[in-house]
Amino acid sequence: MPTAQTVTLVSTIPSGLPEPSHFSIVSSDVTTSNLETGSFVLQTLCMSADPYLRSGLKTGDVPRPLSGFIVGKVTASNSEKYPVNNIIGAALPFSTLHLLSEEKISKTISWDLTPHITEEDATLGLGVLGMPGATAYGGFIDVLRPQEGETLFVSSAAGAVGSMVGQIAKNVKGCKVIGSCGGPEKNAIVKDKFGFDDCIDYKTIKGAEELTKVLEEKSEGGINMYFENVGGMHFEAAMNTLKPHGRVAICGCISRYNDDSATPKLNTIDISKMIYTFQRVEGFVCMPWLSGARGKFLEDMNEWRKEGKVGCEQWVVEGIEKWPEAFQALFTGKNTGKVCVKIG
Amino acid sequence: MPTAQTVTLVSTIPSGLPEPSHFSIVSSDVTTSNLETGSFVLQTLCMSADPYLRSGLKTGDVPRPLSGFIVGKVTASNSEKYPVNNIIGAALPFSTLHLLSEEKISKTISWDLTPHITEEDATLGLGVLGMPGATAYGGFIDVLRPQEGETLFVSSAAGAVGSMVGQIAKNVKGCKVIGSCGGPEKNAIVKDKFGFDDCIDYKTIKGAEELTKVLEEKSEGGINMYFENVGGMHFEAAMNTLKPHGRVAICGCISRYNDDSATPKLNTIDISKMIYTFQRVEGFVCMPWLSGARGKFLEDMNEWRKEGKVGCEQWVVEGIEKWPEAFQALFTGKNTGKVCVKIG
Repeated sequence: MPTAQTVTLVSTIPSGLPEPSHFSIVSSDVTTSNLETGSFVLQTLCMSADPYLRSGLKTGDVPRPLSGFIVGKVTASNSEKYPVNNIIGAALPFSTLHLLSEEKISKTISWDLTPHITEEDATLGLGVLGMPGATAYGGFIDVLRPQEGETLFVSSAAGAVGSMVGQIAKNVKGCKVIGSCGGPEKNAIVKDKFGFDDCIDYKTIKGAEELTKVLEEKSEGGINMYFENVGGMHFEAAMNTLKPHGRVAICGCISRYNDDSATPKLNTIDISKMIYTFQRVEGFVCMPWLSGARGKFLEDMNEWRKEGKVGCEQWVVEGIEKWPEAFQALFTGKNTGKVCVKIG
Repeated sequence: MPTAQTVTLVSTIPSGLPEPSHFSIVSSDVTTSNLETGSFVLQTLCMSADPYLRSGLKTGDVPRPLSGFIVGKVTASNSEKYPVNNIIGAALPFSTLHLLSEEKISKTISWDLTPHITEEDATLGLGVLGMPGATAYGGFIDVLRPQEGETLFVSSAAGAVGSMVGQIAKNVKGCKVIGSCGGPEKNAIVKDKFGFDDCIDYKTIKGAEELTKVLEEKSEGGINMYFENVGGMHFEAAMNTLKPHGRVAICGCISRYNDDSATPKLNTIDISKMIYTFQRVEGFVCMPWLSGARGKFLEDMNEWRKEGKVGCEQWVVEGIEKWPEAFQALFTGKNTGKVCVKIG
């Protein structure tokens, strides 16, 4: 009987750096023969490791298996919908092998990568063609609805989502793009590698008032769109410089990463300024685009990727036993780009 | 040569109640013969008097003519676009007679009432088929985008805009409608006359927290839409009770009425709560719908009016010399409904 290995939390981490000792790789048997109608076996090709997982490790029962985004290949099937060799992205336990049914997978988010990538490219399903890609695509294309020549401001510009938003804006939609991120190294990457027109090192800025001034200068009189990843002074400075008919997309897949307190993050807003300007502030998460319920995320992003217009930095490690180290790297800054753990 | 009479401000009103002595009706000659190509004469049938005009009377040169929304009939024309007997709504000086050109009228907002009303019904062009109607229509239909069975909250529910929003929601779109206004008399009107399901007397409410609680009870667990006319605790209570996929339309044509200070009206907002809920906050003014650039405001509202689904209370006085009194009535509460001054 085949064996599945699963990333398992063995001790909770109330605070501080996650260490490999907090995790264990646990083996279990999986029945892959005599599949019932609608059932199939998914072999994991790669797993993600994301900062947002950190807040879920503070409390709860242990040992417990961890879950997140993975890409897998169907290796045995009694399902017409999920035939052998299909490549699928999904939110599932971090296991090397999954016995699934059509019903079971319908209860989580999944997306069919088969027409878009080969097994060798599986890690793309965690980046450009995964959650960060769908967040960038949905938020920019359908929430912000860009017009050519408009000016976009993006916070967390060096991150997977922010960098892809900027690349789509610049290389696909012909916008002017100003980023914000922390530190001169990231600033240089945002400009030189991701091709942003300009970037603000927010660590050198004292507050919303100063950021407003800098943003006004760099945008030469105001921005048309803001892709919000962080809140706080960035939101207020963006609202202060937002032009008539301006839009703000508030993104979920980043802001929750460090959301480790129950205190609501309140901003101030002058709604009377939104009236004559027809301004709009809208929240969203990637799910409708990732699942295909809305838009043509996979088709469009894969085309733009092939054309060299949009890419996502990857930092790949090999082997499920490396998952705990890869996860730790997120908090020590060791990784450069989206962390992907390849499974042998 | 025909004579035009024009409502003229003769002394500024820094504070306090506008008195008839602040105004004068000034006569001037208008050349209505030998019209150039594209020119036409518009005879005013009725004029509006709105609270928003108040803040514009505090300073500036006097004497000066006042402007606002009027409805008029073309009585002489050398314009194919504006033939004789056309009935037009427009933002123009409060004059009984206008010599206009196609170019001149293109620089203000105007809308063609000819297919929709007769001369006798001209005052409809200041209400259901005018600025308040377009504000209610555009904000509700195109900004809030209602679904049948959803729950709407409307502030200033007894006013022209708020009452029409509620009627469209209830009688056209099959929504549940909760209003807010000040005092038991207005509350009764909102429920009995305008047919709202429920109404909150905000004068009995201490703050956003209490209003949130009341709104949660009355809506039985949350609202889907909020039509914002006032700001302050209403906005915050609405955001607190807004359901997933909820929308807030921030309306311009009311909130500026009492906007007599330069101090921005700041609200607090927890944008992180808008993310996983896909919530949207959007500002707007009536212009695109009133001008016909967007939607089918005149067609739809006139049909709903004829079917008895949407109406607007009118308080009609006769004669341009009564305009100053009618304007004063807005601030003493003497009027019941939209103030219209009919011109002989």
